[in-house]
Amino acid sequence: MKRAVCFGEIMLRLNPPGFRRFVQTDSFEATYAGGEANVAVSLAQYGVDAAFVTKLPEHEIGQCALNALRRYGVDTRGILRGGSRIGVYFVEKGASQRASKVIYDRESSAVAQANPEEFRWPDLLQGADWFHFTGITPALSDSLAAACLEAVQTAKNMGIRVSCDLNYRKKLWSREKAGKVMAELMPYVDVCIANEEDAADVFGIHAQNSDIESGVLDQQGYTMVAEQLAQQFGFKAVAITLRESLSASDNRWGAMLYQGGQAYLSRKYTMHIVDRVGGGDSFGGGLIYALLMDYAPQEAVDFAVAASCLKHSIEGDYNLITRQEAAHLAAGDASGRVQR
Amino acid sequence: MKRAVCFGEIMLRLNPPGFRRFVQTDSFEATYAGGEANVAVSLAQYGVDAAFVTKLPEHEIGQCALNALRRYGVDTRGILRGGSRIGVYFVEKGASQRASKVIYDRESSAVAQANPEEFRWPDLLQGADWFHFTGITPALSDSLAAACLEAVQTAKNMGIRVSCDLNYRKKLWSREKAGKVMAELMPYVDVCIANEEDAADVFGIHAQNSDIESGVLDQQGYTMVAEQLAQQFGFKAVAITLRESLSASDNRWGAMLYQGGQAYLSRKYTMHIVDRVGGGDSFGGGLIYALLMDYAPQEAVDFAVAASCLKHSIEGDYNLITRQEAAHLAAGDASGRVQR
Amino acid sequence: MKRAVCFGEIMLRLNPPGFRRFVQTDSFEATYAGGEANVAVSLAQYGVDAAFVTKLPEHEIGQCALNALRRYGVDTRGILRGGSRIGVYFVEKGASQRASKVIYDRESSAVAQANPEEFRWPDLLQGADWFHFTGITPALSDSLAAACLEAVQTAKNMGIRVSCDLNYRKKLWSREKAGKVMAELMPYVDVCIANEEDAADVFGIHAQNSDIESGVLDQQGYTMVAEQLAQQFGFKAVAITLRESLSASDNRWGAMLYQGGQAYLSRKYTMHIVDRVGGGDSFGGGLIYALLMDYAPQEAVDFAVAASCLKHSIEGDYNLITRQEAAHLAAGDASGRVQR
Amino acid sequence: MKRAVCFGEIMLRLNPPGFRRFVQTDSFEATYAGGEANVAVSLAQYGVDAAFVTKLPEHEIGQCALNALRRYGVDTRGILRGGSRIGVYFVEKGASQRASKVIYDRESSAVAQANPEEFRWPDLLQGADWFHFTGITPALSDSLAAACLEAVQTAKNMGIRVSCDLNYRKKLWSREKAGKVMAELMPYVDVCIANEEDAADVFGIHAQNSDIESGVLDQQGYTMVAEQLAQQFGFKAVAITLRESLSASDNRWGAMLYQGGQAYLSRKYTMHIVDRVGGGDSFGGGLIYALLMDYAPQEAVDFAVAASCLKHSIEGDYNLITRQEAAHLAAGDASGRVQR
Amino acid sequence: MKRAVCFGEIMLRLNPPGFRRFVQTDSFEATYAGGEANVAVSLAQYGVDAAFVTKLPEHEIGQCALNALRRYGVDTRGILRGGSRIGVYFVEKGASQRASKVIYDRESSAVAQANPEEFRWPDLLQGADWFHFTGITPALSDSLAAACLEAVQTAKNMGIRVSCDLNYRKKLWSREKAGKVMAELMPYVDVCIANEEDAADVFGIHAQNSDIESGVLDQQGYTMVAEQLAQQFGFKAVAITLRESLSASDNRWGAMLYQGGQAYLSRKYTMHIVDRVGGGDSFGGGLIYALLMDYAPQEAVDFAVAASCLKHSIEGDYNLITRQEAAHLAAGDASGRVQR
Amino acid sequence: MKRAVCFGEIMLRLNPPGFRRFVQTDSFEATYAGGEANVAVSLAQYGVDAAFVTKLPEHEIGQCALNALRRYGVDTRGILRGGSRIGVYFVEKGASQRASKVIYDRESSAVAQANPEEFRWPDLLQGADWFHFTGITPALSDSLAAACLEAVQTAKNMGIRVSCDLNYRKKLWSREKAGKVMAELMPYVDVCIANEEDAADVFGIHAQNSDIESGVLDQQGYTMVAEQLAQQFGFKAVAITLRESLSASDNRWGAMLYQGGQAYLSRKYTMHIVDRVGGGDSFGGGLIYALLMDYAPQEAVDFAVAASCLKHSIEGDYNLITRQEAAHLAAGDASGRVQR
Repeated sequence: MKRAVCFGEIMLRLNPPGFRRFVQTDSFEATYAGGEANVAVSLAQYGVDAAFVTKLPEHEIGQCALNALRRYGVDTRGILRGGSRIGVYFVEKGASQRASKVIYDRESSAVAQANPEEFRWPDLLQGADWFHFTGITPALSDSLAAACLEAVQTAKNMGIRVSCDLNYRKKLWSREKAGKVMAELMPYVDVCIANEEDAADVFGIHAQNSDIESGVLDQQGYTMVAEQLAQQFGFKAVAITLRESLSASDNRWGAMLYQGGQAYLSRKYTMHIVDRVGGGDSFGGGLIYALLMDYAPQEAVDFAVAASCLKHSIEGDYNLITRQEAAHLAAGDASGRVQR
Repeated sequence: MKRAVCFGEIMLRLNPPGFRRFVQTDSFEATYAGGEANVAVSLAQYGVDAAFVTKLPEHEIGQCALNALRRYGVDTRGILRGGSRIGVYFVEKGASQRASKVIYDRESSAVAQANPEEFRWPDLLQGADWFHFTGITPALSDSLAAACLEAVQTAKNMGIRVSCDLNYRKKLWSREKAGKVMAELMPYVDVCIANEEDAADVFGIHAQNSDIESGVLDQQGYTMVAEQLAQQFGFKAVAITLRESLSASDNRWGAMLYQGGQAYLSRKYTMHIVDRVGGGDSFGGGLIYALLMDYAPQEAVDFAVAASCLKHSIEGDYNLITRQEAAHLAAGDASGRVQR
Repeated sequence: MKRAVCFGEIMLRLNPPGFRRFVQTDSFEATYAGGEANVAVSLAQYGVDAAFVTKLPEHEIGQCALNALRRYGVDTRGILRGGSRIGVYFVEKGASQRASKVIYDRESSAVAQANPEEFRWPDLLQGADWFHFTGITPALSDSLAAACLEAVQTAKNMGIRVSCDLNYRKKLWSREKAGKVMAELMPYVDVCIANEEDAADVFGIHAQNSDIESGVLDQQGYTMVAEQLAQQFGFKAVAITLRESLSASDNRWGAMLYQGGQAYLSRKYTMHIVDRVGGGDSFGGGLIYALLMDYAPQEAVDFAVAASCLKHSIEGDYNLITRQEAAHLAAGDASGRVQR
Repeated sequence: MKRAVCFGEIMLRLNPPGFRRFVQTDSFEATYAGGEANVAVSLAQYGVDAAFVTKLPEHEIGQCALNALRRYGVDTRGILRGGSRIGVYFVEKGASQRASKVIYDRESSAVAQANPEEFRWPDLLQGADWFHFTGITPALSDSLAAACLEAVQTAKNMGIRVSCDLNYRKKLWSREKAGKVMAELMPYVDVCIANEEDAADVFGIHAQNSDIESGVLDQQGYTMVAEQLAQQFGFKAVAITLRESLSASDNRWGAMLYQGGQAYLSRKYTMHIVDRVGGGDSFGGGLIYALLMDYAPQEAVDFAVAASCLKHSIEGDYNLITRQEAAHLAAGDASGRVQR
Repeated sequence: MKRAVCFGEIMLRLNPPGFRRFVQTDSFEATYAGGEANVAVSLAQYGVDAAFVTKLPEHEIGQCALNALRRYGVDTRGILRGGSRIGVYFVEKGASQRASKVIYDRESSAVAQANPEEFRWPDLLQGADWFHFTGITPALSDSLAAACLEAVQTAKNMGIRVSCDLNYRKKLWSREKAGKVMAELMPYVDVCIANEEDAADVFGIHAQNSDIESGVLDQQGYTMVAEQLAQQFGFKAVAITLRESLSASDNRWGAMLYQGGQAYLSRKYTMHIVDRVGGGDSFGGGLIYALLMDYAPQEAVDFAVAASCLKHSIEGDYNLITRQEAAHLAAGDASGRVQR
Repeated sequence: MKRAVCFGEIMLRLNPPGFRRFVQTDSFEATYAGGEANVAVSLAQYGVDAAFVTKLPEHEIGQCALNALRRYGVDTRGILRGGSRIGVYFVEKGASQRASKVIYDRESSAVAQANPEEFRWPDLLQGADWFHFTGITPALSDSLAAACLEAVQTAKNMGIRVSCDLNYRKKLWSREKAGKVMAELMPYVDVCIANEEDAADVFGIHAQNSDIESGVLDQQGYTMVAEQLAQQFGFKAVAITLRESLSASDNRWGAMLYQGGQAYLSRKYTMHIVDRVGGGDSFGGGLIYALLMDYAPQEAVDFAVAASCLKHSIEGDYNLITRQEAAHLAAGDASGRVQR
């Protein structure tokens, strides 16, 4: 059984039930999620021995976050306890022309304030085949940026493959800072994952002939972006997800995997959306699984896109599907016929 | 007022609220349904004096099932009480590319273990104009297969019209056993209802030029299937429902009624689905009503398809619409404009 | 800050959760709304000092209605207390081919039975820039028709602009009575709002070449209707909303503003509907805001249609959006991309 | 099987979930109940062939009320359909020192506006052994008072036993009018049921040495009240319930049955209350059952008090217990031990 | 109409539904409350023109907090908008021997980080008759301590009465710091409110012969505490609440008001608790109302204790009762009989 | 860290929300529990490395049961997958005089049909310090009785301490069969746990002078029962729980631990009950923890009773408390004061 370690923040996610707006609701559905935790859950669902590393306060809400991961089989023994708070984010699901909204309240979280030395990477990475983080983790604090650097260096030394989802968040840091910090980390990364905007935001690498707002995406432009990324940082593989947002209710979704100098385009899906948040992370989870299992590039990107397509039909950030379900869709059955 | 008697199993249906997956839910919505019970409810909704025959345990959950039928006006006086358990099925609603799932836990239910002699058909069918069962009932146990045979023979003797929805369920019995048992029952059946796969599964009669997985259906092929069925068993009418599954959220839906050597094709509807389970049964309910009321064939299939189209917009298995609502849609108004 | 006063009935709205039918539900979601109250909330959301005038019983349910308005910033100091009951309406949300249903139980409500003298219009309209009512208010009782007349006359005398949404409800009064009463009120109205059927129902003015049932609308025909209305009653502006009902789940939506002898057509939206009730009122709210703020006609109708397009994605009658959200959509971004 | 007919109003009951106050709630739990409907449900639960007579509007909410009765096995074939509205009442559950509140909105209900001739008593009472009504029914309208009179006279002529729960409601009529109308009906009544205040309110017959507010009840005083009632109207039996309200959460509960010149005092229960509304009606249901079954007086009052004690532990007005459960408590086991 | 201004923090309160523990819940009920906001709502419920001053972030969750106050009639025009977060607290309701738990996550809230100059007290206190704050506000940050000092000085100069609830929270500051900061503020305070532990915690003034843990309280000891407080700081009145915690489900509750050198003891209540949080604040709200209305001391403490007794039966922090309800209980009716 | 292994069945528990009766509910709260699983969760909550052994079907509902255990930190690696169904039980919570009800539907569950050889005890018990089962497990099937025997023999050989909760269930087996099977297992048991009836039911050992129905318990009688049990089977310790059922809402609760020839009586608690099911199991969990940690006998029984007292305030079977919470109550603070 392969083992993967993910590192980052897990937060309390609060969303009004159904399509209620924030100002209407008298209750919130509570789940616990975050970019890297979502990947850990995906991997555990597929049968990988997935561990998650973070720091959580001792109190019961911290315990809830830990329990949420255990529930889906993630190894939580590497989670530190302490600090004063868990980050919170509020999600309002959009519909039709009304966009979904996310409000973050994650400052001063236990993990953001953790000391880099608290994370004992040689122990934490013992027995691992893969290490995953996203651009959010180093953005949370200088301490976490340092922790990330130590983690990827340790991983490299231990011969562990490393993936990073660029995941640029403009409210966490400036493009300049992101570019600088990420550039230090990238040389240790084997697989780089990005959405249609990240490469431009973080490294100033732009796709040509594309207009993200209008949802028109030029796959050739993206291939060039992937190529540039690979050349600049020495990535073994670059994956770019391609989302066309027809409305908050309907999206088109696909991806491209650039590997060995070649671009592999996935099948595209038109999705009627149940919950879009976590969609990108679920692609990462599918892709890491496929690469861990040594899928061929076309198979890998098809599996990852099928997996993340299914995520859009599931409430919450976690992609609570099985490997078989993703494989079934990747194999071509998108009919949604009842399974008895 | 016409009287119809339906015979089969009613189960506890448990589904997570909304689009939650099984592994996410902390609660289940509870309703009570089954192929023949769903038909009985449809008929009661349209004003028929509909009775349901089954066996339910004495305990409160058995009582709940009985109450659910009474609530919608079904005559439950013919329901036996005893045995130890009520069947259960779990329903997870799919969306977009994610299929709906049904898990059955119906073994050893009170009705499946009932002794054929417990059902006193001459009494139970007293005053009835119609008797309905589905292929699920004889599949549940040899006892029930025997009970079905006695029921249809009694009905025949009493001059009561008989309908059967083939409803093949591969987890309940093999194609071989189904074919054998059903072939014994069919000679007593006047109206045979099937979906696009049943005739092939049960009697090995295949539609030509059709690919169910891909959702491409050839109506001519189905006409030939209906013709063969009618010839082989002497049915007065054969109805075949035609579902094209675009995704778990969107389906196309229509049907064909073969009667007097002629095929009547219904109008087709593209449906945005609220709850797909029970869709086939609601067609049966509409068709039996229309035939009981002596609708002309085209009218009958149009009424039945309109009724079952509306079912797909309703939570739970029961088609809780009125006769007027089905007639209104059959008459052509599919605009869904607010009725004040 | 501009001040607007709306006058009418606010009712208790009861709807089953989600897509449950009336006969299925064991609970109702409770909100408080009404044609003019919905407009008042829209205006308060956009930053207008919006007041609502009505009469509510002293009891707690009356207080709930008042609190619902206060919650969203509506000035409720002009609301009278007394009388015995608050009107109630039941809403069942439709889906796909199944239409939404509204059952009204509003007879003998406190406001319908209020004495016209109870409303002291010179005080109530003090400081106002705009007065709004709909055709529902005079339809509720002769007393309220008298109160409306006094209100619009007072407004006229005080130099306050007046708008009226024709909002014909056939269950409240006959076309004849509506035509007669409304014709008395119209001379005091500056801005007339109507949907595709109102002008015909109330004043017998028909759009040519249009078939409402089939959802085919002829914009030229409507321009002629607007022109006739403007000529007959001296309106400064006439706005007509244009709804094409593809199904209960999907509608196309736009509007035309006729002003200064010219027709301004809005952009059109295809909407996947969360809750359709209150859609027309939200157009009124957007239009009044735009006209209060002296938007140019094209801008005004675009803002109003964008605002009301968004309403269809929101549970309940109230259009709980901000001015910025409507403006953002009016400016062209209908992609529904997540806002973080 | 004995048959009993109950006559009165059934309303939509709306209560906030749990202990929420009206001003806090965004939803209401919806049930359908009324003094006589509650008795009909009790009787059906115990195995009596219980019918309910009323008038309900044709619309879906009227249908819901009818379905609620059918669900628990009440014969609803005598229910008229028509009129415009169903009465509504709002219930807020109290706790500790905070009292429960009930707000009625029942004016102009379909049944209150029914014409006495619509109720064909000889048909409706065909085959009945018992007829039951309460003082609420004649209080609702003069028409219903006339209908009650015709009903009790018909019952008398047909040899059917008649019971009446005085159930005085000061918001429906004055003491004077109640006294006058009820005095006309009483001569046809065999069994009179009252709580500790009714006899004083309706007929001016006061218990001595009792202070209802303080919860101190003098059983001798009540015996004298019963005696006077029996003498004045010729009742064969008089039952008086005795409630001591320690708080909204805790009550003491018992009753006295006066029959054959003798008073039979029940066992007393101290109850921790789940839902107090419907408590009195559940006593009536238990008593009528016991008298229909010819229980001895002591047995009858013990059964009725045990049955109604259990009601206080059940949400909603209906006393959804079985005959066995009431008998088990009446036999002395109040331990509440888990039954597996 | 009297006007009162309250100053402090309002937070998002999240509690699992019913008696669920934090680790069990998948959802939270969301309300918005805080020590001084709770008092403002109490006063608005009684008919006082109550305003609340705080600072809230611009985002929707900040808006929700503001809307919650508006809903119950609190004047929110003095609320500043800005800063990055709203404080959050998690409440788990205890039962029987299991204690309720509160987890605070309030660091760096918008109001705690507000600059003292942002609050323009002469404007904010314009027209006010009363100013209220609690010991929590100065504990949140040095800025807020400075803001409090300026507020009470301004109030003093404007002839506005000032009340303070000591409300010591050991997690916010040490006893030493609390003692020092509060000692500066007290000279401007007219009415001091405390529970049985506050005087000891903040000022080292101990009641003799009392053992808070065991719930045995010596009223004479508390009179001496009140006397010392009054002498030390020149309070015109001191109120001390007396809680005996029998269990998380049952408490005894009373208070003492020390005024004019005399102690007035309230009636005591034994309460079955629905929600205990906010109980102390509701006493403050009742007392301030009574003093604003110039109730005699005995009347005042009886009203305040009755009001706060009722609070314990209400979900959430707010004491959503009317003046009449508190007066009714203070007048002696604790029977909780249904009010129809 | 100590390691304990529990063996038995885990079922899907379905209960109506709140105090709804089965016949009222439209939904069920879903948890997963069972006598031994409840103990495993208790132990994991206290910090023990607790494992649970059972067999669960492959389908999603089986997965849900496994996830429920993982969520609370139970090691589920020893759980077999296969078989066709998971047992189900329905729980209706009682209140006041109305008893709670449990309906079991557990026949033919995966674990009951498991082959004894499937459980490889030497592996499963590797590293364990304790093995626990209850009398329910061998009652489920002869296979499980055999598996239990092999388990306790293996444990004995490996020097692992063994505990058994007699837990007699009359619907699963006769007293005769229970006595015979259990007598074979007891020689391998170190610690025997029983409630006030088990010893009599299983081994015919009766407490003198006690009347369980009336709730009067004679502690001396129970000491003699414990003594007899210890002598007959060589138990090192015998614990007997003592429940007095005042009503479904209020119970008294205590226990006695007989060890080294001496009886240690615990403190007694009067509990206001939230959920009584699982109460006995939570005593077992507390006791095993205390004995694993080598608590002195008095300490052990006090800890176990405090822990299980708290369970009665928690929804669901699991005792979701921490070791600190139990210790805090055992140390004497039963006041339930809010912990901030």
